[in-house]
Amino acid sequence: MKKLLLAAALLAAPVLAQDAEPKGEPSPGEIVAAAPASEWVTIAPQDLLVMTLAPDRDGHERRVVIQLMPPPFSQPWVANIRTLAHDHWYDGNAITRVQDNYVAQWGDPNGDDKAKARTLPEGLGPTSVGEYETKIDGPIERALQARLKAGEESLSDAFAKRGADKVLAIKRAIPRDPYSDETLDFKGWPVAVDRQSQTAWPIHCYAMVGVGRGYAPDAGSGAELYAVIGQAPRHLDRNIALVGRVIEGIENLSSLPRGTGPLGVYEDPAQQVPIASIRLASELPADQQPHFEYLSTEGATFAKYVDARANRRDPFFIVPAGGVDICNVPVPVRRVP
Amino acid sequence: MKKLLLAAALLAAPVLAQDAEPKGEPSPGEIVAAAPASEWVTIAPQDLLVMTLAPDRDGHERRVVIQLMPPPFSQPWVANIRTLAHDHWYDGNAITRVQDNYVAQWGDPNGDDKAKARTLPEGLGPTSVGEYETKIDGPIERALQARLKAGEESLSDAFAKRGADKVLAIKRAIPRDPYSDETLDFKGWPVAVDRQSQTAWPIHCYAMVGVGRGYAPDAGSGAELYAVIGQAPRHLDRNIALVGRVIEGIENLSSLPRGTGPLGVYEDPAQQVPIASIRLASELPADQQPHFEYLSTEGATFAKYVDARANRRDPFFIVPAGGVDICNVPVPVRRVP
Repeated sequence: MKKLLLAAALLAAPVLAQDAEPKGEPSPGEIVAAAPASEWVTIAPQDLLVMTLAPDRDGHERRVVIQLMPPPFSQPWVANIRTLAHDHWYDGNAITRVQDNYVAQWGDPNGDDKAKARTLPEGLGPTSVGEYETKIDGPIERALQARLKAGEESLSDAFAKRGADKVLAIKRAIPRDPYSDETLDFKGWPVAVDRQSQTAWPIHCYAMVGVGRGYAPDAGSGAELYAVIGQAPRHLDRNIALVGRVIEGIENLSSLPRGTGPLGVYEDPAQQVPIASIRLASELPADQQPHFEYLSTEGATFAKYVDARANRRDPFFIVPAGGVDICNVPVPVRRVP
Repeated sequence: MKKLLLAAALLAAPVLAQDAEPKGEPSPGEIVAAAPASEWVTIAPQDLLVMTLAPDRDGHERRVVIQLMPPPFSQPWVANIRTLAHDHWYDGNAITRVQDNYVAQWGDPNGDDKAKARTLPEGLGPTSVGEYETKIDGPIERALQARLKAGEESLSDAFAKRGADKVLAIKRAIPRDPYSDETLDFKGWPVAVDRQSQTAWPIHCYAMVGVGRGYAPDAGSGAELYAVIGQAPRHLDRNIALVGRVIEGIENLSSLPRGTGPLGVYEDPAQQVPIASIRLASELPADQQPHFEYLSTEGATFAKYVDARANRRDPFFIVPAGGVDICNVPVPVRRVP
């Protein structure tokens, strides 16, 4: 078991201390663990959804906690989802579709979304399609500038500390993105930027939660939602509203059996996973409210964490990558008492 | 159910024909389905591993088919894995670790890998570390050139066909990669390129299979393997040998319960998933040999498929991405009689 655990630890190479471990620089996990309390930001209970699934076949509880997205992104849908949760509208819905390396999706298993959606606030039709993107304003622009500066400083630090030869692999202060001009973590969320149109939009990383919709101009209401459980499906960016991300319990979605129907739909309704309830954490009894913090993406620790993710120098690694996809830099989130 | 299925179909937007579907261009799936037989390449049975897991708790068979990597990549490990499979060495091993959004890993549950590995062919120690990369030779260089040419032609086609305004979103014939100078599908495999060192290496995309190892100079023997079940862990590229990919049955790994120990290790041995056998397909009785083909990555259809993945114009999409990560262009593989 020793060898196995060792190899397992090494493949992932985060935080397990091993006697035999060679000397190296701190891992991304160690950098985050050393962040001062001041860099952790409280997530407000009204920004948390608690989804309780039916217990699994062994009777174990299954809970999924979702953090809703802050302004300036997707707010019409987020507002509507808050209303639906407040109205207990999701209770009795079910997970109806799990497609491997793609999404787990939930909604009304009887397909009455549309009928029920008629009772929902209006205004989420054609006009909201444009809201998949947001104009780059002062705060986003300042965050882009700050990141550029931090990146340049980190490069020049690296030169001073390691010498030019060691820095050859650290080629880019701002990693290149196949899908946009630039990516950035902004207020705790992964965002892509287009310089020509001066727009920004949230990114479909692992565990992000989005709004199922029909053909445009339908933009979805939030009655049907999905969570990403595979390689970031970035082609959906700017085509669907992203409204949040799973911050605890993603394994209760990602390890569900895959549906065998087209697109991973459960062919037999008996395979669906019932949703007991979805509640805003702020509307739960105080002793049942979960509390979370995220690591400020504007702080010094986050910049170090990104650099370490892009250039792994902890003991397991031989060649630092010299760059990183934003979806491989999950924003650290922790549960607090 | 109608609405649900519709929305589900739309979110993924591949191949379901819908009465209400607006007009659009062919989806990536439709492009692949139209490929001529001449562009499909047979995968030799000696390049296939068939892993049979213990049946699930409902008694259902669980099988995983792995395609081994061809030259010039990782051949010392691939050769050793063939030997291990030929010797039935893997039989009675188990899946011992499933870490969410990362890997499922298997090996000897008793941790005797090292002892047993002593009986394995030598030569996979320190000297093989350099073999995580390969020099760019004639065939890879020619493939890079051909891709560049195809990309330029596709751009100029797009201009002719759609007009400059529609092409604004199609910015890059060669998508940018955060981890390398350039990526390329070569002989059916995702590969990254470094121009300065003139090296190329295989990429840790979803479902790729790699070799667990200890600290360098250990490079692993192939006795312990893992499959990627989440966002491509590209920081492992050039740090671990990749030896193949799962081409059928990945859901039998990706939907397993996550381990609750550090790094997803199953804490209770009872949670491990026994491996009944791993066999080379060529060593199975003829009537049990599975047969597969992949779509040539050097053909005209694959170029069209990449373009459609980078610029979705099928009916569901509003904004084509203008680029694509190589791990979001899985090489099409199909089972044949």
